[in-house]
Amino acid sequence: MRFTSERRLDDGILEREFTLGEIPGILWTSGSASEPVPLMLVGHPGGLRTMYPRLAGRARQAVTNGFAAATIELPGRGDRPRSPEAEQARADLRRAVEAGEPVGDEIVDRLILPLVEQAVPEWQAALDALLALPETGGRVGYSGGVIAVGVRLAAVEPRIAAAGLYAGSFIPRATFDDARLVTVPAHVLLQWDDEWNPRRQALDLFDALGSTEKTLHANLGGHTGVPQFAGEEAARFFARHLR
Amino acid sequence: MRFTSERRLDDGILEREFTLGEIPGILWTSGSASEPVPLMLVGHPGGLRTMYPRLAGRARQAVTNGFAAATIELPGRGDRPRSPEAEQARADLRRAVEAGEPVGDEIVDRLILPLVEQAVPEWQAALDALLALPETGGRVGYSGGVIAVGVRLAAVEPRIAAAGLYAGSFIPRATFDDARLVTVPAHVLLQWDDEWNPRRQALDLFDALGSTEKTLHANLGGHTGVPQFAGEEAARFFARHLR
Repeated sequence: MRFTSERRLDDGILEREFTLGEIPGILWTSGSASEPVPLMLVGHPGGLRTMYPRLAGRARQAVTNGFAAATIELPGRGDRPRSPEAEQARADLRRAVEAGEPVGDEIVDRLILPLVEQAVPEWQAALDALLALPETGGRVGYSGGVIAVGVRLAAVEPRIAAAGLYAGSFIPRATFDDARLVTVPAHVLLQWDDEWNPRRQALDLFDALGSTEKTLHANLGGHTGVPQFAGEEAARFFARHLR
Repeated sequence: MRFTSERRLDDGILEREFTLGEIPGILWTSGSASEPVPLMLVGHPGGLRTMYPRLAGRARQAVTNGFAAATIELPGRGDRPRSPEAEQARADLRRAVEAGEPVGDEIVDRLILPLVEQAVPEWQAALDALLALPETGGRVGYSGGVIAVGVRLAAVEPRIAAAGLYAGSFIPRATFDDARLVTVPAHVLLQWDDEWNPRRQALDLFDALGSTEKTLHANLGGHTGVPQFAGEEAARFFARHLR
């Protein structure tokens, strides 16, 4: 891990860009914590530059709540090299949506599964590096991003103690198998009127989660209109499980 | 309304039993509030004596949060006279459940609709009396109990500003029509693994609610195992809408 930039945000939070090999990432820490704090991995759908305002907002809330927060770029997104197969899958999705066709399992698998298979080990490698830092210690939480990535990560990465899953993207069939292997507490956020969200699948996924403690919060507001109180409830979930 | 008893609970809360005609009820107030406070109507499935511990717990939380709280007995429950039709419907339900048969719409209608049709005007009459008291003023919330009663009340009673609905009982088809007429903020609690809860119906009911702000919280814990954090989230919902 190599830090490439550093700046202090208005509220004193320290924001550092880093690279892990060719993978760009960002780490936010309080800059005034006297001891190691739990780490929040902040997931997103890809494109750090585009997602920066929302990422920074979530990260700042996490740091204010007593955690460190970090994210990395997804494979094939942002500045990272594209894969022809991923681009083809996105084009096929676009075509199906424009033609008014249902988005079939085959397109979903081609769109999402390679991303999961590549991204999950990358987030685990990022965890290795981030947990070696003096600022981090204790539990790790994962929140948001592509739900199939979050579910797989929560299923296979033992250092993740709690998962916040955002039901806002297509769900491959394999993700249901991953879900059954998840045992850590899970908080699923569902925007009930999200036109991009196959709601039935999201509810079935919640049902499939193997966690003995799991909670689903459904609200109105469309894909990006998560109510503020919902964000606060998610923050309390992580406070309960990471501290 | 006639107060029939009064006692001070350990935490200073004033608990008064009352009758409204032949209907027994209980009112809880802080006993030290200097001005009128919003009122929480505390719903329940019937049988004040049996439900008292849970009712008192919810009422005390409401009073601690700055509200007055009140409840009345349901028609045909507790000490109130039974109706032959209601008893027949309960017997038919029991027989269907014991025979492993699905509980059909007809039994649900006979079990729940007469209760709704009688109870809702009674809760409205209780509201008339309770809001005439010096201790109450401002907004009114309704929480819990038989979901069909809560939905009808939220739909027809303009003084109710926010509804907490507990999805733990059978839902008549007519309740979906009532739900579409609900416009106030709604917080629906669903115990995902509640064996008495027709989950699909509960989700469809949430969908049918006409409220522009609504939230569904689903948790594990069975019919009576609502996690403490879930109760706190509901309390925050009412704090947002009643204060």
